[in-house]
Amino acid sequence: MRFDDPVPVTTIAQLIGAELVGNIEGFATGINEIHKVEAGDLVFVDHPKYYTACINSSASFIIINTKTYFPEGKALLIVDDPFEAYLKIVEFYRPFAPSMKMMSESASIGKGTTIMPGAYIGNHVTVGNNCIIYPNVAILDHCIVGNDVIIQSGTVIGSDAFYYNKKTSREIHYKKMTSCGRVLIENGVEIGANCTIDRGVSHDTIIGAGTKMDNLVHIGHDTVVGKNCLFAGQVGIAGATTIEDNVILWGQVGVSKTLTIGKGAVVYAQSGVKDSIEGGKVYFGSPVEDAREKMKELVWIKRIPKLWEKVMEGKEK
Amino acid sequence: MRFDDPVPVTTIAQLIGAELVGNIEGFATGINEIHKVEAGDLVFVDHPKYYTACINSSASFIIINTKTYFPEGKALLIVDDPFEAYLKIVEFYRPFAPSMKMMSESASIGKGTTIMPGAYIGNHVTVGNNCIIYPNVAILDHCIVGNDVIIQSGTVIGSDAFYYNKKTSREIHYKKMTSCGRVLIENGVEIGANCTIDRGVSHDTIIGAGTKMDNLVHIGHDTVVGKNCLFAGQVGIAGATTIEDNVILWGQVGVSKTLTIGKGAVVYAQSGVKDSIEGGKVYFGSPVEDAREKMKELVWIKRIPKLWEKVMEGKEK
Amino acid sequence: MRFDDPVPVTTIAQLIGAELVGNIEGFATGINEIHKVEAGDLVFVDHPKYYTACINSSASFIIINTKTYFPEGKALLIVDDPFEAYLKIVEFYRPFAPSMKMMSESASIGKGTTIMPGAYIGNHVTVGNNCIIYPNVAILDHCIVGNDVIIQSGTVIGSDAFYYNKKTSREIHYKKMTSCGRVLIENGVEIGANCTIDRGVSHDTIIGAGTKMDNLVHIGHDTVVGKNCLFAGQVGIAGATTIEDNVILWGQVGVSKTLTIGKGAVVYAQSGVKDSIEGGKVYFGSPVEDAREKMKELVWIKRIPKLWEKVMEGKEK
Repeated sequence: MRFDDPVPVTTIAQLIGAELVGNIEGFATGINEIHKVEAGDLVFVDHPKYYTACINSSASFIIINTKTYFPEGKALLIVDDPFEAYLKIVEFYRPFAPSMKMMSESASIGKGTTIMPGAYIGNHVTVGNNCIIYPNVAILDHCIVGNDVIIQSGTVIGSDAFYYNKKTSREIHYKKMTSCGRVLIENGVEIGANCTIDRGVSHDTIIGAGTKMDNLVHIGHDTVVGKNCLFAGQVGIAGATTIEDNVILWGQVGVSKTLTIGKGAVVYAQSGVKDSIEGGKVYFGSPVEDAREKMKELVWIKRIPKLWEKVMEGKEK
Repeated sequence: MRFDDPVPVTTIAQLIGAELVGNIEGFATGINEIHKVEAGDLVFVDHPKYYTACINSSASFIIINTKTYFPEGKALLIVDDPFEAYLKIVEFYRPFAPSMKMMSESASIGKGTTIMPGAYIGNHVTVGNNCIIYPNVAILDHCIVGNDVIIQSGTVIGSDAFYYNKKTSREIHYKKMTSCGRVLIENGVEIGANCTIDRGVSHDTIIGAGTKMDNLVHIGHDTVVGKNCLFAGQVGIAGATTIEDNVILWGQVGVSKTLTIGKGAVVYAQSGVKDSIEGGKVYFGSPVEDAREKMKELVWIKRIPKLWEKVMEGKEK
Repeated sequence: MRFDDPVPVTTIAQLIGAELVGNIEGFATGINEIHKVEAGDLVFVDHPKYYTACINSSASFIIINTKTYFPEGKALLIVDDPFEAYLKIVEFYRPFAPSMKMMSESASIGKGTTIMPGAYIGNHVTVGNNCIIYPNVAILDHCIVGNDVIIQSGTVIGSDAFYYNKKTSREIHYKKMTSCGRVLIENGVEIGANCTIDRGVSHDTIIGAGTKMDNLVHIGHDTVVGKNCLFAGQVGIAGATTIEDNVILWGQVGVSKTLTIGKGAVVYAQSGVKDSIEGGKVYFGSPVEDAREKMKELVWIKRIPKLWEKVMEGKEK
């Protein structure tokens, strides 16, 4: 998330009650998670396992629960609970303040675009030119839709990330990490009916130009989809995953989080992608393998009874 | 379903044209299906296979199509078609009479709760304090939502059960069993976009406190979900199933009806649960098995060609 | 798609800039794709592989990109790009002109039917008698719903087909084939919440009388479903497939395109149907096989370690 204007890091420190050490003169331009940070960003870290990665990231301002680091040119904001500090910043700079009209007055709608009845267009949403937004679609705050985009009925753009912090005080429970990212839908994208595309937690979920999706497709937070992909009905993609250009996912394929599917890969129906896979190949199975190898495997399985018979005969002789 | 006030069993008998035998002085407090009945309830049974279970259940009033039983302290309501009698009672005491406004005047909305535009709130719905109900959600008649609940866009709470009586007169067809149950959503539950949670047929579908669901999740009628569970995108759970506390179901998992998943069980993505499984373990596959065993099986399958080669060599020698 | 009135083929030729040869006196009554054409129809073909099939189909008027055929009694409309000519005809005779009210004035609603708030009923839609259309349903232009039909909240009837023409100029991209077909829902059908039923590309998607669907079910374009079928939650059926009467598909089943499932077939949960299957049998697996055989296979797989041990022992001796 970008702030509207750069914010002095001293102001942030005051907001979250942090001890500020290092470069205390800086201005923060936004807040982000570790995989997406840029210079000028705030980032938070609360687990020793990730301290070094966070310190060495591009982030300029690190909200942290230890005093053992002094990175040059950066500022540390030391607090007991960095996660709560993150929530406080997001809630202050991106407060929940939804439009109570179906069409927000702060939304911008391009020329030649049709917004059909029952569609909700939230605050600060931008929809480009020559789009069709069908009935009962919801495009939530801050999302951006390009030109020549079609979104069919019932689809939700910008639902919150499914992203929770596990807490184990007394009993296991989950605390929501407030989403402050957006969904960016590029030109020429077409999205089916009753799909859901979650906003990024603190960065953007992106659907690349020319990509087409069938109905009931789910795209998780911070996932980046390339150009001219095809996703058939009921495909589900988890969060923070990268789908490169020209990837084809057939019906009911599931894709796990934080992985990459290479350019031009094709995944057959009902398959499950749990690790990164190379582009230019065809895949099948749950978990996926090379489609031809997987098909052969199905034939091999059918030979077990014959094998059993031979081995038992051999034994009896 | 509870009646608003207890109803003399003689009134019920008259409504459905039943012959009344046994304790004819009683008052019925509700109507329920056999797995959920309590003292004071009406229940119906039309198949000899279930006569004994029904007679021995906690129900006080049994709608039945035989005269062979005389259970002490209970009343029998004898009719030719108990299923039709059940439908008549439900339609009389819980008639279809929906609100024709987006927000029913009989709904009760708590303090600090935001109901966004395009959301439909039906008759006798209760929503607690500090909830967010996003655009185009539908919460249908009689459902109850606790405090601090978030329901994202397009989700439907209280759709009818998928529950039909098979009829074979002339040709096979299906007659709907009218749903008169509710959905109860406890405090701190968060539900994603475009999910569907069916009401109970005659009892309640319950989502336990602190449970979080991603998008496009389906929960069947009369299913009871425990506290602090996590269900990832596109999970589907059939009817009358019990999910105990702290269960984690990853994306696209399917769960069959009338089974139990034990406390703290974890089920990997795309798996299928067709029978009850113990808590505290990790599962994979369709149908599921112990995840580690199932993973090993995938390795064993890859050894078949080598085995084949060895056995055939052995044979040739 | 039927034209409102028959159109002289000379008018069509002029609209698309075609050279007209053969029977130039005819009147076109509609436009269709090759699998669905009838006498009087226009059809288009742009690939030599399908020239003969198209010429020999029932179509009376063939939009084609070659001059090598002279079929008796038919007319050829010769153009460089038949696909673009098809789009031009559809856009001219079935222009995108949606209702901007939730209930179109050109819609026809039968007696005893309840249309609940937030439901969108498009232009030229017909809904029969004694139906219930729940909140936030969308029934899009030209779709037809019979009597005694229930459509639960959030369901979309008549979304566009997921049907694209692959273009490879410069880079691979996809051009939408404009849908001009309809959805026909016969009497007594009941459809769950947040389902999607696509319209036909140029013909009709049909749901047969008495069929019942659970929530989050997807039905593709031009698919024809028989009478008294049951589809459980999250079933997905691709385009142009035929499901005969009394078929039961359990939860999360996926069915591929342009195949046939025979009468009375039962497919177990999470299975995948990729080729046509006979009626009257029970299936399981992805891809499906006879359910009992598939179950046995699961047992055989568990015997591989024992087989391995025996063979290796035999070898060591």
